[in-house]
Amino acid sequence: MARNTHVQADTNAPAITAALAHFVATHPSGGWSDAIEAEAHRTWLNWLGCAVGAAEHEAVHAALAAVAQLQPSRQAAVPGRTDRVDMASAALVMGISSHVFDFDDTHLKTIIHPAGPVASALLPLAEVKGASGRQVIDALVLGIDVACRVGNVMYPDHYDRGWHITGSTGMLGAAAACARLLGLNSQQTQMALGIAASQPVGLREQFGTMTKSLHPGAAARAGQMAALMAQAGYTASARALEAPRGFVQTISTKADWSEATSELGQRFEIAFNSYKPYACGIVVHPAIEACAALAQRGVSAEQVQRIDLKVHPLVLELCGKKEPADGLSAKFSVYHGCAAGLMFGRAGEDEFADAVVQRADMVVLRRKVVAVVDTAIHEAAVHLTATLTDGRQEVVHIEHAVGSIERPMSDAVLDGKFHQLCDSRLGAEKAGRLLAACRQLGSASNVSQLVALATPG
Amino acid sequence: MARNTHVQADTNAPAITAALAHFVATHPSGGWSDAIEAEAHRTWLNWLGCAVGAAEHEAVHAALAAVAQLQPSRQAAVPGRTDRVDMASAALVMGISSHVFDFDDTHLKTIIHPAGPVASALLPLAEVKGASGRQVIDALVLGIDVACRVGNVMYPDHYDRGWHITGSTGMLGAAAACARLLGLNSQQTQMALGIAASQPVGLREQFGTMTKSLHPGAAARAGQMAALMAQAGYTASARALEAPRGFVQTISTKADWSEATSELGQRFEIAFNSYKPYACGIVVHPAIEACAALAQRGVSAEQVQRIDLKVHPLVLELCGKKEPADGLSAKFSVYHGCAAGLMFGRAGEDEFADAVVQRADMVVLRRKVVAVVDTAIHEAAVHLTATLTDGRQEVVHIEHAVGSIERPMSDAVLDGKFHQLCDSRLGAEKAGRLLAACRQLGSASNVSQLVALATPG
Repeated sequence: MARNTHVQADTNAPAITAALAHFVATHPSGGWSDAIEAEAHRTWLNWLGCAVGAAEHEAVHAALAAVAQLQPSRQAAVPGRTDRVDMASAALVMGISSHVFDFDDTHLKTIIHPAGPVASALLPLAEVKGASGRQVIDALVLGIDVACRVGNVMYPDHYDRGWHITGSTGMLGAAAACARLLGLNSQQTQMALGIAASQPVGLREQFGTMTKSLHPGAAARAGQMAALMAQAGYTASARALEAPRGFVQTISTKADWSEATSELGQRFEIAFNSYKPYACGIVVHPAIEACAALAQRGVSAEQVQRIDLKVHPLVLELCGKKEPADGLSAKFSVYHGCAAGLMFGRAGEDEFADAVVQRADMVVLRRKVVAVVDTAIHEAAVHLTATLTDGRQEVVHIEHAVGSIERPMSDAVLDGKFHQLCDSRLGAEKAGRLLAACRQLGSASNVSQLVALATPG
Repeated sequence: MARNTHVQADTNAPAITAALAHFVATHPSGGWSDAIEAEAHRTWLNWLGCAVGAAEHEAVHAALAAVAQLQPSRQAAVPGRTDRVDMASAALVMGISSHVFDFDDTHLKTIIHPAGPVASALLPLAEVKGASGRQVIDALVLGIDVACRVGNVMYPDHYDRGWHITGSTGMLGAAAACARLLGLNSQQTQMALGIAASQPVGLREQFGTMTKSLHPGAAARAGQMAALMAQAGYTASARALEAPRGFVQTISTKADWSEATSELGQRFEIAFNSYKPYACGIVVHPAIEACAALAQRGVSAEQVQRIDLKVHPLVLELCGKKEPADGLSAKFSVYHGCAAGLMFGRAGEDEFADAVVQRADMVVLRRKVVAVVDTAIHEAAVHLTATLTDGRQEVVHIEHAVGSIERPMSDAVLDGKFHQLCDSRLGAEKAGRLLAACRQLGSASNVSQLVALATPG
């Protein structure tokens, strides 16, 4: 009956649960650079724009129909909708709506989409508790720091193994953020992280289905509830993250502990957050940009005989769907992304509509794209060679796609994206005021004006 | 940048998600032997007794305080209490209360405690939907079958790695059970399993804290919500369990697929469920029984100089806490269990009270116990040698502890345990009527009488 019960237990891991909890509970309000402060506001507005924009998505409808069965109280808003539900359900639904377009933010070191779980947990809690915008921004920066630092500890092995790292670290970020917003002390915050650590969410197998978006939503709900439970005295292991049968060692084969605490309070992971110009998996973005550049040169879909791409390995691993049947699966198709870039010069949510994905000319164009892995190509790059029907060749090389660390989206482009997402839901004028409220969140006395502006009608 | 992205993907795994979903949706009501039908009722009453008995536990108080922050509707009862909350929160709280005494059931092949996640999801849903007792029993048998079969696929490697298998398979059992109760078809049930598959709960590091009990509670809530979401049209991967980056291959290093479907509909895993005579980790039970036998021979604590135990390896791995500080941690101490067995002749919840754990004579007695692993000892056995102060030695060998498959608890003993748990909460007369209602659940037209009897006052 004897068996090898735990292959690789590291019993000497540093006390990262305690260290991160102490940091979250005690770091000074606004204790970071202006650049970090600005990035926090950019992260917030990008997240809220995505949530508002997708508020009528069928995944949001289905989730709200399930939530309605609980006869929830009307304590918190669902941005982009007139529904109000309890704050835990609001976190769930907002996590879904902010992610379902695959248009949200990306922590480029780990491919975590951090705002989904963290901000979705925060906004309804802030609404119910009457928290200030300053408290929300503080909690957002610190919560994202926790999620992404734990992601750094485990990435890439954890992600490679099959975990959708957004949901499997997001509940820690949400717990940290909500603990901060609630004013929990270090010990209570440690318990909140411990409670959350038992509830990782997300399998990569779900990509292309609504459950991908459940991952940030369920993580937001779990983290928010973990903080509320810790506040009420619920206990967990004080070493939940680092113990031999704790979170990291159970769900990852990589554990680079130093990532959790190196330069803690000096380096903020939100600095590595980026925003998507295209509504799909970020690894496809360089290829879309290259095809859009081709279109800008005047090359039309009919002129193209074949498009050859050299891509980073993750492109085909994550987004290799050759014949996507609908919009959700097309978001994981470099072939559809390229077709959209060439046909329309853009790849927003409209270009991933089911009807567009199923158009005969798009099917034909997708099949002209041939992608091969080239290990010399990094994640933000692509090399494209288009062979035209007249035999000519066009070459486009993208070294750093827009939305990469090297070429961040400008504020103006981000504002444009916000309007693109929100105008149809809220009207352009109200969307503009919501955008301004997001940009000034850190000085708002509470979130009620922002919530009102995010509500249609 | 190239890396080994997935070491051991099995791309040819059989379609167990579809097979289990079809089974759950289509197996005939009551389509099993009388023995299985009886075991389902035993499982139900043991679970409800535990939930009622622990209704005033501080973990339940803390969880309900957090739930109260959501201003929940009063649609479902919390057995043993007068509180009413929404059905998802009721599932959460009941999963906690039924497990926090560590007195619940055990599927002996996997150490899964299956009723916690499955029955806790079912009862509030049945109350809200007005389901019949027949529907509840059907859903219970099928839900437990799904959780335990998936457990068999992964056990022991998955558990060894650090997962608390009760919570990391329980959300599948809860989803299956609730899907059955809601009358979902095969395809919808497949989606429910898929949605649940992204939400495994539970780390073994949490043993000895309240979060251990959160595991069946959060799994119950996740599974119930997964079924409600699937009913509302939420989608997931149709191969969520078996795909290369699906549930099993992501969270386990063992994948014995045949366990999922062999003799499906013929062999029911609830047949391997057992009930605890002692309120602690089941691997300690043989040692407690041996010490209680010693007490029955007239040996007193003062007479004992030293107790030597030969135990199965899991005893020290799971329950090796030498100096437990409180009741929760004492449940994971073979030393405290032995002291209780010898001092009191029993080890119910009372013998794990903080005050008992901290008694000076119990501390002294615990320190007289020396446990060593013997790989010849199986999980239901123990070999005890007591050396008395006068030099005499007493030997007790337990080959099959009470509660093992070979020596199941009788109905009479189970009824006694139910009264021991419920009388102080409900009064003996009402507890007796509740017990009768549990025994007749399969023929009840709904669960309202059972719920009324489980409510104090």
